[in-house]
Amino acid sequence: MRTVNAYAAPSATEPLVKTTIERRDVGPKDVMIDIAYAGICHSDIHTVRGEWGQIQYPQVVGHEIVGTVSEVGSEVTKHKVGDRVGVGCMVNSCGECEYCKRGDEQYCAKGNTGTYTSVDPIDGTVTQGGYSQAVVVTEDFVLRVPESLDYAAVAPLLCAGITLYSPLHHWGVTEGTKVAIVGMGGLGHMGVKIAAALGADVTVLSQTTSKKDDSLRFGAKAHYATSDEQTFTDLANSFDLIINTVSAKIDMGAYLGLLAVDGTLVNVGAPSEPLEVPAFALIPARRSWAGSAIGGIRETQEMLDFCAEHGIVPETELIDAEQINEAYDRVLKSDVRYRFVIDAATFA
Amino acid sequence: MRTVNAYAAPSATEPLVKTTIERRDVGPKDVMIDIAYAGICHSDIHTVRGEWGQIQYPQVVGHEIVGTVSEVGSEVTKHKVGDRVGVGCMVNSCGECEYCKRGDEQYCAKGNTGTYTSVDPIDGTVTQGGYSQAVVVTEDFVLRVPESLDYAAVAPLLCAGITLYSPLHHWGVTEGTKVAIVGMGGLGHMGVKIAAALGADVTVLSQTTSKKDDSLRFGAKAHYATSDEQTFTDLANSFDLIINTVSAKIDMGAYLGLLAVDGTLVNVGAPSEPLEVPAFALIPARRSWAGSAIGGIRETQEMLDFCAEHGIVPETELIDAEQINEAYDRVLKSDVRYRFVIDAATFA
Repeated sequence: MRTVNAYAAPSATEPLVKTTIERRDVGPKDVMIDIAYAGICHSDIHTVRGEWGQIQYPQVVGHEIVGTVSEVGSEVTKHKVGDRVGVGCMVNSCGECEYCKRGDEQYCAKGNTGTYTSVDPIDGTVTQGGYSQAVVVTEDFVLRVPESLDYAAVAPLLCAGITLYSPLHHWGVTEGTKVAIVGMGGLGHMGVKIAAALGADVTVLSQTTSKKDDSLRFGAKAHYATSDEQTFTDLANSFDLIINTVSAKIDMGAYLGLLAVDGTLVNVGAPSEPLEVPAFALIPARRSWAGSAIGGIRETQEMLDFCAEHGIVPETELIDAEQINEAYDRVLKSDVRYRFVIDAATFA
Repeated sequence: MRTVNAYAAPSATEPLVKTTIERRDVGPKDVMIDIAYAGICHSDIHTVRGEWGQIQYPQVVGHEIVGTVSEVGSEVTKHKVGDRVGVGCMVNSCGECEYCKRGDEQYCAKGNTGTYTSVDPIDGTVTQGGYSQAVVVTEDFVLRVPESLDYAAVAPLLCAGITLYSPLHHWGVTEGTKVAIVGMGGLGHMGVKIAAALGADVTVLSQTTSKKDDSLRFGAKAHYATSDEQTFTDLANSFDLIINTVSAKIDMGAYLGLLAVDGTLVNVGAPSEPLEVPAFALIPARRSWAGSAIGGIRETQEMLDFCAEHGIVPETELIDAEQINEAYDRVLKSDVRYRFVIDAATFA
């Protein structure tokens, strides 16, 4: 066991506080990672505040982790001490179901083991996330992080990056595909960069035009304000794929109307209330509304390599550990361009 | 012009009455069809009662038409006098958009010309449907009806048949695909027969078990009552494809939960109110909710040929023209197994 510093939520209503947690001894297939940077995801906030179900406290969150391998188990073949590696939203899965076997561990029939708040099949403890100095993870769930990617900025690829890459990839985005990204936050801005690098014709649909310059800089060809009703007339029947990163309730009929025949709107944002969807927005153009969750391990590695090849990293604001609670408040106010990353040296 | 007998709705609130309508002279590319049988579709009822928008009265409906070619225009090459033919929900489309060009006339970018209540691009009149003695249709929208199919029963294939065949075909149903059909009415029973003939493993989800024997006779392997909550536990995460033929509001979260990872629920039933759909029913298993409308002309021909090959016809109850209003009442009470067909000889 190794005792490490961490920031944990003591309850659903209190700020995160500095504490210590135990990391298990490195088993035969385990990798110990000395964490360098950890991203802050909106999911972290939903989770610690109990908005996605009751959890056990204290709880450390964080599932956008990069660091350096400091120890490996006797049977580890994929990573070695000194490697730059990453961990995303999962740290294990059954490995035996049809989904795991085909590389879709995120949809494991038995449920994957989340990087935090899951019961770890290896030692039975509740998993604790990346807001800490180190983590021990079985090697199959550890990703190689290409050295060419800016170390301090790369962490959000492990959640925000793969969450957008996976549906763009799964729904076959390629040269000329007409893609709209709804919402220009931590998720959305990654969608713009990745879709543009895939060759898509990207439009950003944001509440206002305040981020238009950023949209164009990240590779979008157009940016429309969704507060302007004219947008929904001008862009009717336009898109092959719309990725909705917004977790709030939106007028689904209006957004589905922006899809061309056979188009798909994919929610990666997860509103807590049901959305009201008229079947008549789907039927006359064989449209689909789908959902997508992160991505598989092989696909996450592919995404990291793709981002290295295209020089894609998230736009980040680096903070110290003691700024986490302030950062949470700013995430909730959408006051971040576009993702906070914690310098793990400041957990010391 | 030819004057023919027909049954028309005089208003949204009155019963259909016998009347006469004019059919245009046969143009160079037109085919005159002496109608033998016309199916009754629930859409006919929604339409004449103004439930899907205001229409002009009097209006003749009916878009499940079979008959014999009695006259052809000078440039017609696809059909000849005496051929057994059919007409479904469309009688024209622009022919030039990407959707028409690829055979998806039902999704024509300019809107297809419906068999009734549309403005006919050829003569500017409002199209009048199949509850009549004859109809004139441009040859490209006239289907060949294989002689081996029971003439008195085949008409509903032109709407109910293709409405189910198209999504089963589009979503790749084949040997062993796990398919559920929700609702065992005019649409649903065609779905069971066609999906079973495609080799799928078919389950019927019906309100009660009263039609279980029929389900099994039509080729389903199982029939579950949706009034029993246990059904949703027993069948969770089971299906690759669910076709929902029900036009009423259903608990979408519960039905989506029956889909396996990457499964799709396709609505062909068109509830008038929006459905409440939790994004959390889609995201954790990359499920989709889609809509589908009838099918293209080439696909409709393929469906007719497929049904001939597999000996599939709808289960029908043959009625005389004067029973149409009574039949409407029975459709609304689901008191028909499974589709009414009007003997067009009784329009005389």
